[in-house]
Amino acid sequence: MKLLALDSSAISAGCAVMDDGQIIAESFVKVGLTHSETLLPMVANTLANAKLTDQDIDCFAVSAGPGSFTGIRIGVAAVKGMAFPRNTPCIGVSTLEAIAWNCVGLRYGVICAAMDARRGQVYNALFHFEDGRLVRLCDDRAISIEELTDELSYEDGSVLLVGDGAALCYKSMQERLSDVSLAPEHIRYQRGSGVAMAALRMYEEQGGQSPEALVPTYLRLSQAERELKKKQN
Amino acid sequence: MKLLALDSSAISAGCAVMDDGQIIAESFVKVGLTHSETLLPMVANTLANAKLTDQDIDCFAVSAGPGSFTGIRIGVAAVKGMAFPRNTPCIGVSTLEAIAWNCVGLRYGVICAAMDARRGQVYNALFHFEDGRLVRLCDDRAISIEELTDELSYEDGSVLLVGDGAALCYKSMQERLSDVSLAPEHIRYQRGSGVAMAALRMYEEQGGQSPEALVPTYLRLSQAERELKKKQN
Repeated sequence: MKLLALDSSAISAGCAVMDDGQIIAESFVKVGLTHSETLLPMVANTLANAKLTDQDIDCFAVSAGPGSFTGIRIGVAAVKGMAFPRNTPCIGVSTLEAIAWNCVGLRYGVICAAMDARRGQVYNALFHFEDGRLVRLCDDRAISIEELTDELSYEDGSVLLVGDGAALCYKSMQERLSDVSLAPEHIRYQRGSGVAMAALRMYEEQGGQSPEALVPTYLRLSQAERELKKKQN
Repeated sequence: MKLLALDSSAISAGCAVMDDGQIIAESFVKVGLTHSETLLPMVANTLANAKLTDQDIDCFAVSAGPGSFTGIRIGVAAVKGMAFPRNTPCIGVSTLEAIAWNCVGLRYGVICAAMDARRGQVYNALFHFEDGRLVRLCDDRAISIEELTDELSYEDGSVLLVGDGAALCYKSMQERLSDVSLAPEHIRYQRGSGVAMAALRMYEEQGGQSPEALVPTYLRLSQAERELKKKQN
């Protein structure tokens, strides 16, 4: 099975092609440009690197949130666009779960995936690997760094911070947690391979969904919605 | 400083662009095609992803060996070709050192980089990370897996196997070593980012070399040379 996985949930963008469970091509870019400019050319280039076209793909996967509202919409729309013509199965994975997969095989008690959600918060979920299987310890959520630090202070084992909010967390957790580490930079950010690894498990367990059914998963209201709500109250 | 790093030393091929010490674009491909077909298009695509051209690059880096004779020559020749027009500085890094950099920040006593060298041997070197600094524990060498296992059996700490020969080693080391692990697949093989991280340190310490001075580093004679020698004796 050939799976194409995309991520454009935050500042970096990534893309990977997986064939029978193996990553056969991957690209990553973090140049500060908008994903509307970088994502589709990168997908085309990654497929070209693997000597494939979008018609060879059996399943399209994307990090469907949490993340930047615009970034997530760009990724989900790109996948829908590629999947519609042949009604190819799609998978939307939790961005935090995809990030956690970057840390498979590493020896830490808790994998703490954190994305900068602004306003003093991070998008976060906690995970643990058991014999190469990802175990989720809580739902995806928006949480203040203080509250997250409190929660982690009850953990016995080592904590590995990963994601674009990891450095932010590390800064304020370092003093209060005895065994906290920052994931090495080359695996810290969202990667197409992480999306592919997470998506493969979902596909094996529950199959894909139709391109129509694929929707973004936001954890908070967008700024526009917040302001509308404020006006209405 | 913008650095372009290439690897085509074995079955996978990789390419990364580093800007001021940060990976801003990376590609990886492992499709079983020859590097003469995949490498230069991948370089062009990676530069395009980063919105750069080869004229923007201040230093070209390549894994210069050990590795496949043809693969290494393709990588070194590609870098020479890109560097000659403007006499851009070049860096040739040990392929094994580049692989070890995939494991920066991971908690293991010894990083054992191993490439399949056929004929019962691996190309190997042992490393250790100290506060994010790579410490080399032995020279690059061709060694039998038995001999390497013997050597590692005297090590106290945990051993992490990485490289395209890692699975081969793991198979025969598992029984004899108490604490040996296989690097997760997405960081197991040569990566452009590993070459870039190794090259940046060399560049900072000793600067680049001219495109003319860049040469492959083979640890063994090629098959053709071995056969010629046999005939001459």
